[in-house]
Amino acid sequence: MAGLPLRMQAAVWVFLTGLSLSAGVMADDALIWRQVDPENLVYMDIGEGTVVMELNPRFAPATVKQFKRLVKDDFYRGLSFYRVIEGFVAQAGNESDLQGSSKQPSLPPEFDQKPGDDWPWASVQTNDLFAPETGFVDGFAAARDTHREWLTHCPGVVAMARGEDPGSGSTDFYIVIGEAPRYLDRNLTIFGRVIDGMDVVQGIHRGRVEDNGIIEDDLARSRIKRMRLAEQLDDNERMDYYMVDTNSPGFEQVLEARRNRTDKWFHHTPPRVLDVCQVPVRVRIEPPPSQVPEQLREQ
Amino acid sequence: MAGLPLRMQAAVWVFLTGLSLSAGVMADDALIWRQVDPENLVYMDIGEGTVVMELNPRFAPATVKQFKRLVKDDFYRGLSFYRVIEGFVAQAGNESDLQGSSKQPSLPPEFDQKPGDDWPWASVQTNDLFAPETGFVDGFAAARDTHREWLTHCPGVVAMARGEDPGSGSTDFYIVIGEAPRYLDRNLTIFGRVIDGMDVVQGIHRGRVEDNGIIEDDLARSRIKRMRLAEQLDDNERMDYYMVDTNSPGFEQVLEARRNRTDKWFHHTPPRVLDVCQVPVRVRIEPPPSQVPEQLREQ
Repeated sequence: MAGLPLRMQAAVWVFLTGLSLSAGVMADDALIWRQVDPENLVYMDIGEGTVVMELNPRFAPATVKQFKRLVKDDFYRGLSFYRVIEGFVAQAGNESDLQGSSKQPSLPPEFDQKPGDDWPWASVQTNDLFAPETGFVDGFAAARDTHREWLTHCPGVVAMARGEDPGSGSTDFYIVIGEAPRYLDRNLTIFGRVIDGMDVVQGIHRGRVEDNGIIEDDLARSRIKRMRLAEQLDDNERMDYYMVDTNSPGFEQVLEARRNRTDKWFHHTPPRVLDVCQVPVRVRIEPPPSQVPEQLREQ
Repeated sequence: MAGLPLRMQAAVWVFLTGLSLSAGVMADDALIWRQVDPENLVYMDIGEGTVVMELNPRFAPATVKQFKRLVKDDFYRGLSFYRVIEGFVAQAGNESDLQGSSKQPSLPPEFDQKPGDDWPWASVQTNDLFAPETGFVDGFAAARDTHREWLTHCPGVVAMARGEDPGSGSTDFYIVIGEAPRYLDRNLTIFGRVIDGMDVVQGIHRGRVEDNGIIEDDLARSRIKRMRLAEQLDDNERMDYYMVDTNSPGFEQVLEARRNRTDKWFHHTPPRVLDVCQVPVRVRIEPPPSQVPEQLREQ
C-alpha cells in the first residue's frame, strides 16, 4: 500500500470508516462554513500541546464573561489537571476553589436556558434516550424540551465544576474525555468545547479510579502553561477557525446521510437514529489572511 | 488542599464525579469479583505503554482463535496503527491485508449470535436508542433483540476491520477511542475489549480527518512492539485481572444506583436511563499469587 498515492489509499479505506467521514465528504459542496468568532476562542497551552476552545456566551453568558476575565488575568497559569479519570473527565484549576475558599466570585447556575425566538436549531433526534429532542445550536450539541434548551455533555465539552450548591462554581473546569456522561446534563454549566487539540487533551495524565481520579503528586499532573484569548495573540501565533454551519442545508444533508446508511458496505442496516454526541462537526483551520502571502490570497 | 490526607480529599471531591464512582463504592461489599480467564488475556506493548485486552470467544470464536494464533506467531510485531481518527477508532495491522493480498485466512462474520439458553444477561436498558435492549454479558456491553445478541461498539472495544465483503476481515483490527459508534453494531466482529491501559491507547498518534485518519509517514505512526498471550509471559511479567461479575446482585445494585440518582448533589434529576457504553465495569489488578511474599498472601 505504501506505493499507492494517498488519494487511492483513501478510496480503498473510505468504506472502513463506517462512512462517518464520507457522509461529510458527500455534502461538501453544499456546506457553508462560518468563521468561529475570535472573541470566543481560547488557546490553552499545556505540557502536551495546545488546545483551542470555543466559548458559548449564548448558553452561559455569566460563566463565559468570568472565564474570559480569568484568562486575561492569567489566573490559570501554572495550575494543573488535578483530577483526571480515563473515560470520564479531566478537571483543572485551583483545587481549593470548591472548598469555599475561592477568592473569585461564585457563578450563577447556567444549566439550561429559555431559548429566544431567534435561536437557531438543527434537529438531530427526537426521543433521544436522555431528552425529548437533540440538535445543534451554532455547532454545539444541545437538547431541549418544550420549555428549555441546554448544551449536552459530549466528548470535548468544557464545563464549570461545582460543589453541592448549584451556584458554587467559580474557576475550576473540566473537559469531557470519554463516552458522553449525559446524566450530568442540566446539572453543570457547559460553557465551551474543544475545537482543536482533542488529541492533546487525551494525552493528559490520568489519576487512579480508586483515588477518584485525584493525582496527589503535583509533579505528575499535566499542567496549564498559560491560557490566552485569541485577541491576546499576534497574527502569527493564532489560526482562523471555520466550522460547518450547523444551520445550513448542507449540514442537514450530513445528518440525513448519517441517519440513512445506504452504502452497500453495511451488512446490517443501522437503525435510523443519531446520537448527537457522535456527529462530528467539521472544523477547517487556516492562517489569518495577514499571514498569507498576497499572491496566494483568495480574490 | 495539599495538606489534607488523601482520604479527606476524596470525600471533598466525591460529589463532583456526578456519582459515577460513588455508585460503585456504595455497593462494594455486595460485589463479586471474577478472575478474567488468563487464556483470554492479550498484552500489547506499544511505544506509548502496555495495553491489556480481554478476548471474547463466546461472541467471536473463530476470530478469537485466529487472533490468538497470530499473536503466538508474533504476526503483529512491528506493525503500526496506520489509521487513527480522534474520537473514532485507532486501526492497526498489516495494511495490505484488506486489499485482498492477505496471506492469512479470511474470517467468517461473527457480527451477532443466537444466544445459548445458559448465556448470562444483566439488563441495562430497554428501548435503547440503537437496540430493543442493552445489557452485559460476562462484563462485555451487549445488545439484543428477540433473536440475536451482539457486542456493542463502546469505547475500548476491539474489533476486526474488513472490506466491503462481510467475510473479508483477517488480521487488521481497531480499537474504539471515542463516543460509541453504535451504528457499526452488527457490521463488524467485536472480539475483545481493553481492560487496562486505555489511557495508553488514547496516546496513540492520530491521523488527519482530511486523510481519513491514514498516517502516510510510517515513522510518525504508533507501533506495536509485540503482542503476547498471558500464557507466554512469566509470572513476574503479568498481573492477575479481576472484574466485577456483571451477573451478580451487587452489579445490579450498581446499575440501579446509576439509573436512580438520588444524591442531593443533583439539581435536576436525570432521566432513569442508562447508556450501556457509559457504565464502567470495575477492574482490580493484582500480582499473581506466586509473586506475593508468603506472609502477605490471603489465607
